[in-house]
Amino acid sequence: MVIVMKANATEEQISGVEKFLSNLELGVHISTGSERTIIGVIGDKRILIDTPLEIMPGVDRLVPIMEPYKLVGKTFRPESTVINIQGVEVGGDSLVMMAGPCAVESEKQLIETAVFLKEQGVQILRGGAYKPRTSPYSFQGLGEEGLKLLARVREETGLLIVSEVVSTDSLEKALKYVDVLQVGARNMQNFDLLQHIGKSKMPVVLKRGLSSNIEEWLNAAEYILNEGNYQVILCERGIRTFETATRNTLDLSSVPLIKEISHLPIIVDPSHGTGKWNLVTPMARAAVAAGADGLIVEVHPNPQFALSDGNQSLNFESFSTLMDEIRKIAPILKRELSQ
Amino acid sequence: MVIVMKANATEEQISGVEKFLSNLELGVHISTGSERTIIGVIGDKRILIDTPLEIMPGVDRLVPIMEPYKLVGKTFRPESTVINIQGVEVGGDSLVMMAGPCAVESEKQLIETAVFLKEQGVQILRGGAYKPRTSPYSFQGLGEEGLKLLARVREETGLLIVSEVVSTDSLEKALKYVDVLQVGARNMQNFDLLQHIGKSKMPVVLKRGLSSNIEEWLNAAEYILNEGNYQVILCERGIRTFETATRNTLDLSSVPLIKEISHLPIIVDPSHGTGKWNLVTPMARAAVAAGADGLIVEVHPNPQFALSDGNQSLNFESFSTLMDEIRKIAPILKRELSQ
Amino acid sequence: MVIVMKANATEEQISGVEKFLSNLELGVHISTGSERTIIGVIGDKRILIDTPLEIMPGVDRLVPIMEPYKLVGKTFRPESTVINIQGVEVGGDSLVMMAGPCAVESEKQLIETAVFLKEQGVQILRGGAYKPRTSPYSFQGLGEEGLKLLARVREETGLLIVSEVVSTDSLEKALKYVDVLQVGARNMQNFDLLQHIGKSKMPVVLKRGLSSNIEEWLNAAEYILNEGNYQVILCERGIRTFETATRNTLDLSSVPLIKEISHLPIIVDPSHGTGKWNLVTPMARAAVAAGADGLIVEVHPNPQFALSDGNQSLNFESFSTLMDEIRKIAPILKRELSQ
Amino acid sequence: MVIVMKANATEEQISGVEKFLSNLELGVHISTGSERTIIGVIGDKRILIDTPLEIMPGVDRLVPIMEPYKLVGKTFRPESTVINIQGVEVGGDSLVMMAGPCAVESEKQLIETAVFLKEQGVQILRGGAYKPRTSPYSFQGLGEEGLKLLARVREETGLLIVSEVVSTDSLEKALKYVDVLQVGARNMQNFDLLQHIGKSKMPVVLKRGLSSNIEEWLNAAEYILNEGNYQVILCERGIRTFETATRNTLDLSSVPLIKEISHLPIIVDPSHGTGKWNLVTPMARAAVAAGADGLIVEVHPNPQFALSDGNQSLNFESFSTLMDEIRKIAPILKRELSQ
Repeated sequence: MVIVMKANATEEQISGVEKFLSNLELGVHISTGSERTIIGVIGDKRILIDTPLEIMPGVDRLVPIMEPYKLVGKTFRPESTVINIQGVEVGGDSLVMMAGPCAVESEKQLIETAVFLKEQGVQILRGGAYKPRTSPYSFQGLGEEGLKLLARVREETGLLIVSEVVSTDSLEKALKYVDVLQVGARNMQNFDLLQHIGKSKMPVVLKRGLSSNIEEWLNAAEYILNEGNYQVILCERGIRTFETATRNTLDLSSVPLIKEISHLPIIVDPSHGTGKWNLVTPMARAAVAAGADGLIVEVHPNPQFALSDGNQSLNFESFSTLMDEIRKIAPILKRELSQ
Repeated sequence: MVIVMKANATEEQISGVEKFLSNLELGVHISTGSERTIIGVIGDKRILIDTPLEIMPGVDRLVPIMEPYKLVGKTFRPESTVINIQGVEVGGDSLVMMAGPCAVESEKQLIETAVFLKEQGVQILRGGAYKPRTSPYSFQGLGEEGLKLLARVREETGLLIVSEVVSTDSLEKALKYVDVLQVGARNMQNFDLLQHIGKSKMPVVLKRGLSSNIEEWLNAAEYILNEGNYQVILCERGIRTFETATRNTLDLSSVPLIKEISHLPIIVDPSHGTGKWNLVTPMARAAVAAGADGLIVEVHPNPQFALSDGNQSLNFESFSTLMDEIRKIAPILKRELSQ
Repeated sequence: MVIVMKANATEEQISGVEKFLSNLELGVHISTGSERTIIGVIGDKRILIDTPLEIMPGVDRLVPIMEPYKLVGKTFRPESTVINIQGVEVGGDSLVMMAGPCAVESEKQLIETAVFLKEQGVQILRGGAYKPRTSPYSFQGLGEEGLKLLARVREETGLLIVSEVVSTDSLEKALKYVDVLQVGARNMQNFDLLQHIGKSKMPVVLKRGLSSNIEEWLNAAEYILNEGNYQVILCERGIRTFETATRNTLDLSSVPLIKEISHLPIIVDPSHGTGKWNLVTPMARAAVAAGADGLIVEVHPNPQFALSDGNQSLNFESFSTLMDEIRKIAPILKRELSQ
Repeated sequence: MVIVMKANATEEQISGVEKFLSNLELGVHISTGSERTIIGVIGDKRILIDTPLEIMPGVDRLVPIMEPYKLVGKTFRPESTVINIQGVEVGGDSLVMMAGPCAVESEKQLIETAVFLKEQGVQILRGGAYKPRTSPYSFQGLGEEGLKLLARVREETGLLIVSEVVSTDSLEKALKYVDVLQVGARNMQNFDLLQHIGKSKMPVVLKRGLSSNIEEWLNAAEYILNEGNYQVILCERGIRTFETATRNTLDLSSVPLIKEISHLPIIVDPSHGTGKWNLVTPMARAAVAAGADGLIVEVHPNPQFALSDGNQSLNFESFSTLMDEIRKIAPILKRELSQ
């Protein structure tokens, strides 16, 4: 922490800050410039995390030097984390492909989709049973019935299952049926839920919040790791900006940026990231080219009749094209794609 | 709903859409312009809320005509809702003042603040017992112990109590101690929590989400009303924008806008809205001048030692000035302020 | 400037930075913490303004300590600037009122509006002759003809004239006719234009750019002051955010914030700030309550037939109400309003 | 244009709108739903572009059906535009590579860079002579002297030259020396400049404004085409969002989106798009994978000593890697890269 004093700060104010810090058993390093005095703080600065030094007389502003997170950072763990989910690796040499319908609608829809995806080389089937919808009048998902359908399809196809949890209640149920949990954008800062997931020790896809910056996203992951669950897969899914031509603005630069500062794997959701099915494949290519560890894509046998997010779902033909193109780009990034 | 066809849509595509709608027992009204065909949909359009018409062949885009919400709108209830919380009215002729520390820290802090606020004419004491903090290493609140302190202070001072809930668990506890619930910005779309609050029938302050537009905010309120709880107080607390000079951008235009489209009362939180204590009083004045039904303000006996949000908390002297200035502006808006 | 070194920076890298700075004749102040080394730079740091120190080996990031601007800041000039435009003061005890049509359309429209505004106590007539329009097919203004109409109306009514310039060409013409120049949001960073205005020594209203933060806005003003023109009136007119219910998000907190860091006067434009005529009066009240030095408002005798911005223009009756309400709020802020 | 009437609009109000439109010689198509009346407008709606119908009694809102632009759209010209700049094609089968220093600093710097870039297969040398800088105290470019250096280097290397213009003055000078003009983000809505460029008939790179949506960007291009200059190359360079970890948020989804609605070529600037040199290559790969027609990249022989944008400039080694990787991805998109 560096404390920048105001241009007109008095000697008394400077020593006031000094005394305040020494009461907290923190050392100081005072640097008197031509125009400003700057105070460096030495010692365990976590003590200061909630201390409003900024309003002390003579203080202009504080400049944090250290990241607020620890376990998710590269300083803590320099090598990349590879998460092994029953044999499927995330964050290693292979690209992981997760795909499936936005919402679980029926056994027929699900099994038809799963069989197709399996053939395409997808490893993890996505399907929402609990849907957080903007309007209370939208389809809210099948709940536990949806989870049971997912589990049945896993038995038949061998695909692993990822599904969203929205509360401790749905978490408790999901833990009985799924292989990977998913936290949606709207719940990225539902800290109570994050802590429960941390305790569950189940692998989890943590989507970036609509208006969360990179640091807040990593802090949310820290909540999970801090409870002892290190199996966190970050997922870029677009942020909210002024642009309305797409549903969200897919911030692909977060991929190489996260790779620099965190050891956690990161995948991309081009379906929510764009909201338009015809932009999904180009942005899936771009995500892989940017260095993503995998993709999560919405696929529906008949998007026109989907009960949720039909506009951004690929049909089988389009998804097949997507896989073809990804297969060509992956080797350039030294990535494999399972057959 | 209006369906805009593409410039080059064929006759067949147009009749395809027509057929699709008539299968849903919806009537159509086709308007053939010089460049585009437009299809108006007649009947109960709620059927269409999740139907991805946008991807039907020949369709360019859909234009929703009706608001997605119902119970919160002025069409449903033209006159303003006045919520009576044990004699304190919100949304009527009086301005409601809620104030108190960001977090409940100790009995001493709380009682000292409450006695002062009572003298100033404040009716509702705020104090966080469950704090949703960006970092797991920040002070997370005293939990149920904090709620008990709040209840004890209510007994001593007669002030009503508002406190934040962050999960069904904390909700269950809060229902035993508080008079008004609060949903924070990060939980505005925690739909599971909203539904539980709806069932509780307890008055609630619903803060606007960091990146929520007006329509999403009203939809969140709709979740609560839809469960039979009509006692929702909206609270503007700033949105996330590119500007970093303030913690958030306080969008005061939401106040007169909400007054036009909804019957629910709306208050303003200038503390979170700015993040800087020295901007709180000017923005409090502005909020009242814009037509807000009240304010919620962070006050701390010694902000410099606050465990949370000290930078944006007023000390007693500053809050007293705020009250003086509000007292002068209120009558111009034909509002009273209790003594 | 403070240079934060990486956690793993070597001794060699640290002395590399030191050497680099001493070559620029800058002193250093090295503070070695438990986890990081921090280097404070001493001397005239303007040398560093374009130096990419951030990419030197071992450097994590730079933390600027000083504001990049000088002449617009309170450090340079602690007392508020009062601009006297032919007897009309901006930034002093009086609120300045500027009003008029978005665009000059005809002599009849202009004279009718001006006579009304004069009666209402407005001092400066606004009217666009050069209109920067998003589409080339929109009405682009009457050009010099519009300026001549404005000048004629000034003769008849005694109102001063403010009008927008969009290029050095339009500036040259405007200088012959108007009393105050206006730079629109889209040209806030048209630095060439700003420099020409600086040389002109004419008072100027500098609107905040659509996506400009406070610092960039002040830097734009610095371009004008740096050429010797100190008569700059800042104008908050809303910023671009994700919210689409209003045309822009009027960031009123910029008013008290600017008052803290700059000596320049600041007025508010609630017409562009909201884009809806029925939000203009509440936000005008709020602007004055927040401490603005004045307002600039769009008024049209018949908004329904306005050639530009009719949706956000007040008719005479509504403007008269606005003035009545402002007259009541002004004294609370110790401001006068001319009769 | 579709006019949505308010729920409680009277017969009189509906016929008022009808009459208003028929006075403008526009036909109407009235659709009376169960809850709302909708009025479709038939005829040349350009008349309505500036008509504030929205404030007519009984009108709720207007829904534009047609895009506001014409010449830049696919309806006007379905096939992609290929621009031929003295033998270098933009928008065809080849990817175009533009690269060079942010600012022209000296002949030595420029020639050294140009010789290297030529070897790498770059076709167009970028270099700023007129630099629009946020602060008046930053290096402002060499002006005409810089243009002369660029022209000299063209003679020696055969590279074509692209350079930014910031005013009609700099445009006039640039026309004597460069092969392609560039309009920077800050001037995207400098309509006066756009019109002059339109008249010049010189190829131009039009960068997206910091806070411009796709529609405004295309409207800006329309200003140029409308003056008879069809040689416009769009350039995505990132938009301003709440995220501060990168300088801008590179919105790569604009690439496939523009390809759907416009015939103009689009290139990507990953240097400004990220502001960090180590993100440039991953995002360059992503841009090509998303379908961009080319790249414009900042390269400097010694970024550490660059006078402008050193943080985001690649050195020769990094740029060489970038070219290697692009060469591998290009064929997957069926694109060639010149040797």
